[in-house]
Amino acid sequence: MSVLFAERMNAIPKSFIREILKVTENPDVISFAGGLPNPRFFPVDEIAAATSEVLAGTDVSALQYSTTEGYQPLREYIAQRYRDMKKIDVTADEILITNGSQQGLDLIGKVFIGKNDRIAIEKPAYLGAIQAFSVYEPQFCPVSLIDDGADIDQLKDVLNGNSVKLFHTVINFQNPSGISYSENRRREIAKIFEQNGTVIVEDDPYSDLRFTGEAPSSMRSWLADRAILLGSFSKTIAPGLRLGWICAKREIMDKLVTAKQASDLHSNSLCQRIVHQYLINNDINRHIETIIAVYKRQRDVMIAAIEEHFPKEVKITRPDGGMFLWVTLPEKLSALELFELAVKENVAFVPGTPFFVDGGGTNNMRLNFSNSDEEKIQEGIKRLGRLINKTLVEK
Amino acid sequence: MSVLFAERMNAIPKSFIREILKVTENPDVISFAGGLPNPRFFPVDEIAAATSEVLAGTDVSALQYSTTEGYQPLREYIAQRYRDMKKIDVTADEILITNGSQQGLDLIGKVFIGKNDRIAIEKPAYLGAIQAFSVYEPQFCPVSLIDDGADIDQLKDVLNGNSVKLFHTVINFQNPSGISYSENRRREIAKIFEQNGTVIVEDDPYSDLRFTGEAPSSMRSWLADRAILLGSFSKTIAPGLRLGWICAKREIMDKLVTAKQASDLHSNSLCQRIVHQYLINNDINRHIETIIAVYKRQRDVMIAAIEEHFPKEVKITRPDGGMFLWVTLPEKLSALELFELAVKENVAFVPGTPFFVDGGGTNNMRLNFSNSDEEKIQEGIKRLGRLINKTLVEK
Repeated sequence: MSVLFAERMNAIPKSFIREILKVTENPDVISFAGGLPNPRFFPVDEIAAATSEVLAGTDVSALQYSTTEGYQPLREYIAQRYRDMKKIDVTADEILITNGSQQGLDLIGKVFIGKNDRIAIEKPAYLGAIQAFSVYEPQFCPVSLIDDGADIDQLKDVLNGNSVKLFHTVINFQNPSGISYSENRRREIAKIFEQNGTVIVEDDPYSDLRFTGEAPSSMRSWLADRAILLGSFSKTIAPGLRLGWICAKREIMDKLVTAKQASDLHSNSLCQRIVHQYLINNDINRHIETIIAVYKRQRDVMIAAIEEHFPKEVKITRPDGGMFLWVTLPEKLSALELFELAVKENVAFVPGTPFFVDGGGTNNMRLNFSNSDEEKIQEGIKRLGRLINKTLVEK
Repeated sequence: MSVLFAERMNAIPKSFIREILKVTENPDVISFAGGLPNPRFFPVDEIAAATSEVLAGTDVSALQYSTTEGYQPLREYIAQRYRDMKKIDVTADEILITNGSQQGLDLIGKVFIGKNDRIAIEKPAYLGAIQAFSVYEPQFCPVSLIDDGADIDQLKDVLNGNSVKLFHTVINFQNPSGISYSENRRREIAKIFEQNGTVIVEDDPYSDLRFTGEAPSSMRSWLADRAILLGSFSKTIAPGLRLGWICAKREIMDKLVTAKQASDLHSNSLCQRIVHQYLINNDINRHIETIIAVYKRQRDVMIAAIEEHFPKEVKITRPDGGMFLWVTLPEKLSALELFELAVKENVAFVPGTPFFVDGGGTNNMRLNFSNSDEEKIQEGIKRLGRLINKTLVEK
């Protein structure tokens, strides 16, 4: 049988996180492993009300086949929000509704990546992007993340000389590192791309979850033709609805629509209307403020607990938003070994290695602070601190 | 910019049907072009009731990220229905929930088709399969459909000698031809595949819509390990929910799940639960009987109108179910030219050529009888008959 499978199937890494999530199904486990938004904030009643309204309408088209591009009023809403919030000039026909951002990544892979094409990604990189792109068998060219974004010299090295199809970046509160690109770093990168044919994929599921500071400019404000933006309702409304979008200019959009049509015709008509109705009925910004207030407090509690319980040699990022922070242990410690010990103490996290396409991350941990509560965060970090200290002494 | 696009994008045919559907947006047009189920039968109130129940439950997991494989109770329902209706021994872990059958086709393409791999498809073939598979740049090997299924000699020729990855067949009431495989034809094909490493994709969205005759056996009853079944709720509940499934044995399923995870993590959690709740609350078989009664009458009306208005030289299929019938005009007539004339008379259909990967179909038409009513069918066929007769005289 295995001779029948396409070669590309060997290129897709098995999701380590998926394996970890099996461990965390045990309710006694304090999990910092998942990447889940906190279900406390799912607007269940509002979604139920929106659904009733959608289905009470005389029009049955919410249940019929519909256009590949997506529900027009929802596309208009998203374009308007880009204009309002990010001050970028986006029109509804530049929006393609997808099944979450993950499908956006798959469609970008389909449209751009041929076998052995070079693509630039961050180091560490978003795991979903590694998986989606791996299907198309590219050569990954990792670019290290430093404090305020991708290392410019490395990015130049990667882009110069050899043709690179695209650069994928999670530009705000990156998953896994929590790092955000500063305004200056973005401007520098825009300059590089202006002189270069490469596409930049600005993967941005977290930007609404900003706790502190001003939002820097979108790459699209400099690179309209060659910036592809990915957005999602998964972190602000609910991920189970599987609704995200791609924002791109016409030439790229045409190809993405063709790829989407071949992939699944169109996204769920009913849920597109439900989300649109929900957005009309409710003040999404106020809802987001509620989420932010809690996530920010949980981030603060996690950082305070780390400062109290982890040894001084441990470095962490201090994200201005999002859902994750990134821990760098002393080099002699193995995050994978720590994981095995932690699970026995009923605490879970994601060890760093799966986020690196070329090795590395052995002493890194990704910690999620969104899907927990203050008490569990304090207790979980305390247990982890004890294990780290114990292991440090033994090494 | 165009240098950046992957080569595969040139391999995807632009959907001719999509272009046609623009014509049929005009409400004055009598359209036999689309492939839409009749929205009269969308169970709007029942879906609304099911949604209220799902969202009234205390559990918020209907809105959270969930497993790639799909909602377990829905998978169990589908497996049970296979056991009940088709008498094949399917278990829930052999079911993967997809975004309609179209995503099933895309995932099969991802898992099996490498560039230039040979795959066998029907002639004429389902357009969605041509599109989905084209992305993976196969060599298509068409096998002609005759009265009761694929031409056995052609199928043997295609399979013999050269390695072929899969054979895709819409086994009941095929789209576009309306042809169904007889029990004997299936048995013959099973024998061929038993001696061969090739996978058979039994694409079966229409089998519930059987008007007359007994359902023949599923290919899986002979070829458990190498039959991949595709099913859908689009034709029996509603297509806008985008819910279908793949049924395959473990070894293939593992690969499909990996591909699905990379493609969009999982299908819509909310709609999976809504459909499951709908299926618990309602007698789906009774609902299907209501649909069948009307589609059967519309098929009868269409065939009677064709017999009255089309010249005797025109041949048609007489499908035992489904949504389409297939017209073969005298060879000197061009269905494309007829289409241009018909649109001016406010009637639309799909000319045959897009269903053929190697040319042909110039004198074929696909007529949809599900999404219409008796009066429109009579009037539309009358107009088409007039045009065919007129064109025949002129040629």
